[in-house]
This record gives sequence, structure tokens and C-alpha cells, in this order.
Amino acid sequence: MKKISQALISVSDKRYLNKILKALQKYNIKIISSGGTYKEIKKLGFKCKEVSTFTEFPEILNGRVKTLHPKIHAGILYKRNKRSHKKQMKSFNFENIDLVIVNFYPFEKTISETKNHGKIVENIDVGGPTMVRAAAKNYNDVTIITKLDQYENLIIELNENNGSTSLPFRQKMSEEAFTETASYDAMISNYFVTKNKTSYPAKKVISTSLIEKLRYGENPHQSASLYGYSRSTNLDQLHGKKLSYNNYNDLYAALNASMSLPGNIGSVIVKHANPCGISVNKNKLESFKEALSCDPISAFGGIISCNFKINARLAVELSKTYFEVVIGKGYEKNALVILKKKKNLRIIDSSKIKLNYFDSIVSNLNSLIIQSPDNKKFENKNFHVVSKHKPSRGLFKSLMFAFNACRYVKSNAIVLASNTRTVGIGSGQPSRLDSCKIAIDKMYKFQKYRDNEEIVAASDAFFPFVDGIETLVQAGIRAVIQPSGSIRDKEIIKYANETGTILVFSKTRHFKH
Amino acid sequence: MKKISQALISVSDKRYLNKILKALQKYNIKIISSGGTYKEIKKLGFKCKEVSTFTEFPEILNGRVKTLHPKIHAGILYKRNKRSHKKQMKSFNFENIDLVIVNFYPFEKTISETKNHGKIVENIDVGGPTMVRAAAKNYNDVTIITKLDQYENLIIELNENNGSTSLPFRQKMSEEAFTETASYDAMISNYFVTKNKTSYPAKKVISTSLIEKLRYGENPHQSASLYGYSRSTNLDQLHGKKLSYNNYNDLYAALNASMSLPGNIGSVIVKHANPCGISVNKNKLESFKEALSCDPISAFGGIISCNFKINARLAVELSKTYFEVVIGKGYEKNALVILKKKKNLRIIDSSKIKLNYFDSIVSNLNSLIIQSPDNKKFENKNFHVVSKHKPSRGLFKSLMFAFNACRYVKSNAIVLASNTRTVGIGSGQPSRLDSCKIAIDKMYKFQKYRDNEEIVAASDAFFPFVDGIETLVQAGIRAVIQPSGSIRDKEIIKYANETGTILVFSKTRHFKH
Repeated sequence: MKKISQALISVSDKRYLNKILKALQKYNIKIISSGGTYKEIKKLGFKCKEVSTFTEFPEILNGRVKTLHPKIHAGILYKRNKRSHKKQMKSFNFENIDLVIVNFYPFEKTISETKNHGKIVENIDVGGPTMVRAAAKNYNDVTIITKLDQYENLIIELNENNGSTSLPFRQKMSEEAFTETASYDAMISNYFVTKNKTSYPAKKVISTSLIEKLRYGENPHQSASLYGYSRSTNLDQLHGKKLSYNNYNDLYAALNASMSLPGNIGSVIVKHANPCGISVNKNKLESFKEALSCDPISAFGGIISCNFKINARLAVELSKTYFEVVIGKGYEKNALVILKKKKNLRIIDSSKIKLNYFDSIVSNLNSLIIQSPDNKKFENKNFHVVSKHKPSRGLFKSLMFAFNACRYVKSNAIVLASNTRTVGIGSGQPSRLDSCKIAIDKMYKFQKYRDNEEIVAASDAFFPFVDGIETLVQAGIRAVIQPSGSIRDKEIIKYANETGTILVFSKTRHFKH
Repeated sequence: MKKISQALISVSDKRYLNKILKALQKYNIKIISSGGTYKEIKKLGFKCKEVSTFTEFPEILNGRVKTLHPKIHAGILYKRNKRSHKKQMKSFNFENIDLVIVNFYPFEKTISETKNHGKIVENIDVGGPTMVRAAAKNYNDVTIITKLDQYENLIIELNENNGSTSLPFRQKMSEEAFTETASYDAMISNYFVTKNKTSYPAKKVISTSLIEKLRYGENPHQSASLYGYSRSTNLDQLHGKKLSYNNYNDLYAALNASMSLPGNIGSVIVKHANPCGISVNKNKLESFKEALSCDPISAFGGIISCNFKINARLAVELSKTYFEVVIGKGYEKNALVILKKKKNLRIIDSSKIKLNYFDSIVSNLNSLIIQSPDNKKFENKNFHVVSKHKPSRGLFKSLMFAFNACRYVKSNAIVLASNTRTVGIGSGQPSRLDSCKIAIDKMYKFQKYRDNEEIVAASDAFFPFVDGIETLVQAGIRAVIQPSGSIRDKEIIKYANETGTILVFSKTRHFKH
């Protein structure tokens, strides 16, 4: 137990100061402060000594130097149980500082409020983090409070221990203090990295905030939590059970794919992180129905993401299939009423989410791979028709759709499409030929053909042999798009020409693992 | 350009001090220092003023307070172009500090050298980071050097600019300084988090070091870099081309799986992050051959990981297949000679790698999911035989092998095994039935059966319907292991009993996406 005789307070966020000051007053704890905090404390009617009075040294350089003084830091840092330290403190007539309450103006807030670099830099706090770090280092004797949500516990500690705090409490506060300073400097570091356009710096410090502890991880024997670069995912859950690890995983796969589709007309169904149906159709109901028709069996228990507002008619249709999660870019009122009849259905509004294209991070054992997102915009000029037969405008559109879709399917990926809807998806195979076969099998299983329907195929990477294309063509595929790059490209072109198949080289690969 | 008149030096790593001091001497830059750095500078024969002489205040509390003094921090922080600042500096007779050279004793080194918590805490530097942050904040006027690899550039700057430094240089150094303090405090924060057994703290700061910039990412239009929690992956590359993003991805998938197998007898082949062959066999050559035989076509261009030392006989055999990467737990000399004949083959020695079981991190758009690894040890007691027929000792072993293997296969995963080798792997399908069919197709394609061979199947999650098991039994599978948990479990048990199939419930799920 350590008795608190004197506290230093310097807070950017001045809420609940009154509460804490009352608690300190109760135990006759003296208070030191400066600047805005000093004024606020006086305004609230509490006694308080100014830092400059305490140090007998004025605040200089517009406040850049005020607490960076031996009297302050000796008061925080001296070891209370060490004789030589006590002696020195006495000889200089220095006083104890047993409690430090400091919070910083959040750096992420600074950079969101201004683009003025000078102002941003001026906002970097030097004195505050120094006191925090000094107090956190000396937690054996000193209590360090850095966040508003610690006030309540501090007051409980003081009341339970008659104006003292316990070692476990101080140690826990110390941990949180170093997390605050680390996070604060990580934000500054990343701001400079961005400003200086540094790519892949020698050290990278990633600062995240806990958004939600999940009930468990990918499997029940694993624990997991969701962290964000800010405090929210910007996804609004309007109804239903808590999202699980696997829900989040599938949800983001569905969102990424649906956000890539032309606005307001795209639907994507995902199961086990792979799309099992994608469609683009101006008629929203049809957009969903087409996505579902690709593989209605796999869709069972999956996640549906529509990149448009969900209306009542669609809600009725959605209710006929068992989904774990429905994601809409907003909902009409009646649609929500209909969907909410399913007690457990997780209903997500994605209106607020933006494609920020953060770098992706994946950990492996003792390392992380950080990479830029696969967000290259695929344009007509990347589209090289290498066969004698040329695609019609309709087939061209269909090929573009299929090639974009295969970006979201795990490699090796083969996507079969009719117009702008998938009709067969082969995913996650070590062999490209196997992916072709799986896609074709799916197509045969679930599709009924109309006259003159032309099916196209997209491959996320080149065909190493002719066999893949051969299998597709034999199944009736009319046009194929693939990156090219195999030593057998010529053979493949020859085969396309012999069979009257349209062959397009995209030059762009879309591996996804 | 900012002329440097005075420098403050305080370095834990004293290498190359001589070099830097010579450069400072050349431009008549005065030097302030203290403690060990002061002694070293004097020893090297350079002029130097002690901090306590400079501040006219003694070092107190065993050095806990020495540089935390207004004279030091005003000298660093004052704005050189601001009249009021200049005036104040003059009135106090304070001097410029234009260059700060500080490096910290690495915290990760501290915690690797001692488990004594008191010593560790004592090692936390307060004065150093404060000077670094002050100088970095005032980079407009001050140069901050925090790493040895910046010395060379500082000297170049001084020489090119006749004792001055340029703004872009100072701004870059400022970025790196804040990265250093962020990383330093992140290490301390994580140390406390571990010590206090805090699970999933409110903020998490992940500190990493660049190990290698990769040529490109998962696709050529993406950039990527490998970062580590320490400066090395502990993988030794002995030969061959640089590892690519996809190599790393597959390599870790292969390593994780092979390290899970009984020591010194396991082989795993991975392609597109999925195993396409796993075997456990005391005969090393057979271990590899069995892994290869599961799907020799997919193995082409894959990655092989053996959890044992690779000998010459095996090297000859390995050379017959085209692999991108070979991973061995060491190599016999002759084996290396043989393998190195392939110019491009990446040869990796994994002897130094340990299964540390770090939490896994996966990013999604604006958030990260952090989760504990799927490293639950599966034991006999978790093994519930629910069918009338009971497995023999051999089948039991085979079921255990298959169930462990499916942990490393992407969901939905079905693994068929004979003894302790896989004979069919179905992966990455939205439908479990499809995974069963893929695994069976593979088995029919590549396996020749011996008499009395009994095939078992493992599923990473429960069968939602009887159809999956039905398909397996009809293909001749003798025993099935699965977690259970479906509302149709009873139906499935009934079906197993009717067909004389052995059915085991593991109660453990192994989703992997």
C-alpha cells in the first residue's frame, strides 16, 4: 500500500475532473497542475498549486517547457524505500509526487482536425508522456492514471485503502500507461511515415484498439478478439446474435467482393470465405436470385452482401433461405421488419463503411507479411484478345465481370459466368484442372440453360497446360480470360483458334490464398 | 539548412562513436554528455562537457534524474526563428542543443538477459526517450539521431553542408525517432501485458522489424514486405532464388503441418497453401515418397517440408520432382551437393525454428482479428468411438493421423488416409459433400490398392447431413472421425452401424480459412 500525499494533474480531456478532485480532497491529497487544467481545477473550486510555483521556475517557450524539471521528475522517480534517494530529496527540499493523472490530446484526433503540418507537430506532447513514463516506471511507489475509464477504479482503490493504492493496481496502471505512450508514438510515427512517403520502414509499429472480444476464435478451443485501427469497424449490426470469428471472416470476404461490383446492383454470397454466387443485375430481386442460383446448396448458412439498399420484396425472398448474416447498404423500414422476424439472423448495415484499402497483414509463426491490397483497376486497355474470334460487347462485359469475380475466389480459382452472374465457381485447389472440373460440375448441377446463352470462364492465373482450357471448351465454354505467362501460351492460343474459342489475356494475376 | 553548434550524446551502443566525434570536431561542434558515454568520449580523446556541469545541477537518484532539466529541454525545444523564444533563452542564459544523438539499451535484449523484474524495470529509460521526442518534435531546428545506421548519413550531411543539416534529412530522422520510441514503449507494454497476464488489452501495439522487402506481393502488381517480431525468421536459406510472397505463404503452411507430425519422420507437400500430401514413416525415403504419391500432379511446383535431416538418398529422389522450395531440418553434406545442382531451387534449413505459437493476426479492411493458435493437443481421451464397430490399434493410429492432418487443410477439409499417409485431400469447398467427392476422386486417380488396406477419413467439422458419410462409405472408407455437433448426429451413427463403419467423434473442430 502506498499513501498518496500529492498529485500532479494535467489532462487534455477534462471530463469527470470534479469526481476525481473530490476523492483526492477527501484524503487531503495536495494538487499540482498548470495551464488549462489548473484553471479548470480552480474554477471547480479546489485548491491547487501551479507547476511553476512548485518548481520555482517559470513556464517558458509557450509552454513547451514546464514540467521538464528535476523537482517534478525527482518527485515522481525517487524510490521511497531507498535511503540515499530519501536523503537527496531532503537535501534539495524536493517533495513527493505520488499520483500522476495525465491524458494526451489524441493524436488521431489532431490529424483528423487539421492538415496543417506545423499545427500537428506543435500538438505533439513532450512533457505529458515524460511524466507518464516516469510514473509508470516507478509504479512501485507511484500511481499513474492515463485514461478516464480508470478514474472509477482509482476512487474505489482510494476508498478501500484509506487514501492509498495497492501494488497490483499500480502495476496494472503502469502497463496501461506504457500502452498509451506506445500507441501515441505509433500514431506519430505512422503519420510521419505517410507524410514522408516511406514505404516499408525498418520498423513498423501497429497501433490498434480493442473493438470486441469474440466468444471464441475460428474454433471453440481458440480465443480471439477484434481490433481496429480506430475504435469501430463502421459496420452497424441492427439485429441478431453476436458476430463470431467465422462470421467476421466471411463478412469481410463478402463485403470486399460486393464493394468491387458496380454500385447498387451487386450481390455476393459467401461460405467458408469463398464466394458461392455473385451477380450484377439492375433488378435487385434478380441480382439476389441470380447469386443464389449459382450454388443454392452451399449458400445455406452463408453470408449475403448486397451493395444496395434492401427493400421489402427482397427481404421476403431473403427470408426463404437460411443465412447467418445479411449485409445491406441500408434497409427500407419494411424490409427490416420482415428480416427481424428471424430472431438470430445477424443484420448488418454497411452504409458507413468505406474502401480505405489499408495494407493487408497476415501473420505466420514469428513473422508478418504486410502487403498492398489487390485493388488494381482492370480496364479495357488491359484486355488483349489473342484468338481469331473476337468477343461481342455482351461477352466482353461478361468476361470483365468473371475476371473481377475470380479476384475474390481462393486460388486456384475458376469462375464461369453467363452475362453478369456466376454459374460455376471452382476454388482452393492445388491443381487448376481440378478447379475447372469443380466449376463445371457445379454448373451442370444447378443451371438450366436458355437458348443462345454463352458461358465465359475466368482464371486467376495462367493455365500451365492446354488441359484446363480443353476441359472448359468441351463443357461448352465460349470465351476464356486468363493472365497468360505459361510457356504453353502459344499452344493454348492454337487450341482456342482450332475450337473457335475466344481467348483473352488479361496480363493481370489475381492469386488469393 | 541548420548549423549545428552543440550536440548532446547519450548512447547505450558505443560503437562508431569515434567516427561521429571526428566529424563533429571538424565543424567545431561542442559536445555535452554524461555517465558512460561521457567517459567513453573522454577516453577517445575528445572534449566534452558533463550534463551536470551544463545544467549546473547534479545527477541525482542514481542517474534517474539527470537530463530532465529545463536547460537541456529548452536548448532542444526552442524555436530558433521565434523572437520570444530567443529572448527567453537569452534571459536564462540557455544554450542551443542542435543535435541529439541517443540510443536506448534495447528492451528486448533486457528481457532476454534477465528474468529479474526489478532489474527490467530499472532498465526502462526515461531521460533518453524524452530527449529523443523533444528533438524529434523540434526537427525543424534540431537533428535527432537514434540509430547507428544513421551515422553515415549524418556525416555525409555535415560534410555536404559544411556542418549543417537539411530539413528533409531532419524530418526523416524525426520519423525514425518516433518509430524508435513507439517501438521501445510497445516492447515495454507487451512485457507488462504478459507479466500481468492481461488477455486482449484495450489497446494493442504490435512492434515489428523489417526482415526483407519482397520483390512483389501475392501478385506482381502488389508490393509486400516481411516483418518479424525479431529481426530474423530463423529460417536459413542455403541456396537458390529469393523467396517470394507465395513461397513464404506456402512455406509456413508446410512448416506448421510438418512440425505437428511425430519428430523426424514426417513429410508434407504444400501447393497454394494447402497440403497435397502428408506422410509419417520411419523410413525417410518412404516418408517423402508417400507424401508425393498422394497427388504427384499437384506436387509439381510445390513446397516440400521434412521434419528431419535430409540425406543423400532422399536428395536424389527429391531432385526428380520439380519443387519451388525444399525445407529440411538440416541437410547431410552430400544431400546439399546434390540439391544445389538445381540452380533456382530454394533450399531452406528449418533447424533453428521453434514453434513459439504466437497469436495469429489477420487483417480485414479496417480491422485485425487476433487469435490464439489452433494448437490444442489431441489426445486419446478426446477420442469417442460412437459406432458398434471399434477401431483396431492400427486404424486408431490412422484416424489420429488423419484428424491431425485435416487441421492444416483449408475448410471444408476432408482427409483420407491409409496407415499414416494421406491418400486423398479435399479442401476449400463451401460444401462438405464436395470436399468428400474431391478427396475420393483424388484417391481413385492416384492410388493403387494393396489387399486389406483400410482407408479412414477425417473431417475438420461435423457432417450436416448423412450424404457426406454415405459418399465416403460407398467409396470404401472403413472408419470416419469428425467433431460431431450436427442435429443429425444420431442419423449418422445409425448409418454407420448399418454399414459396419467405424465412427469416432473428436469433439474438436479444426476450421481453417
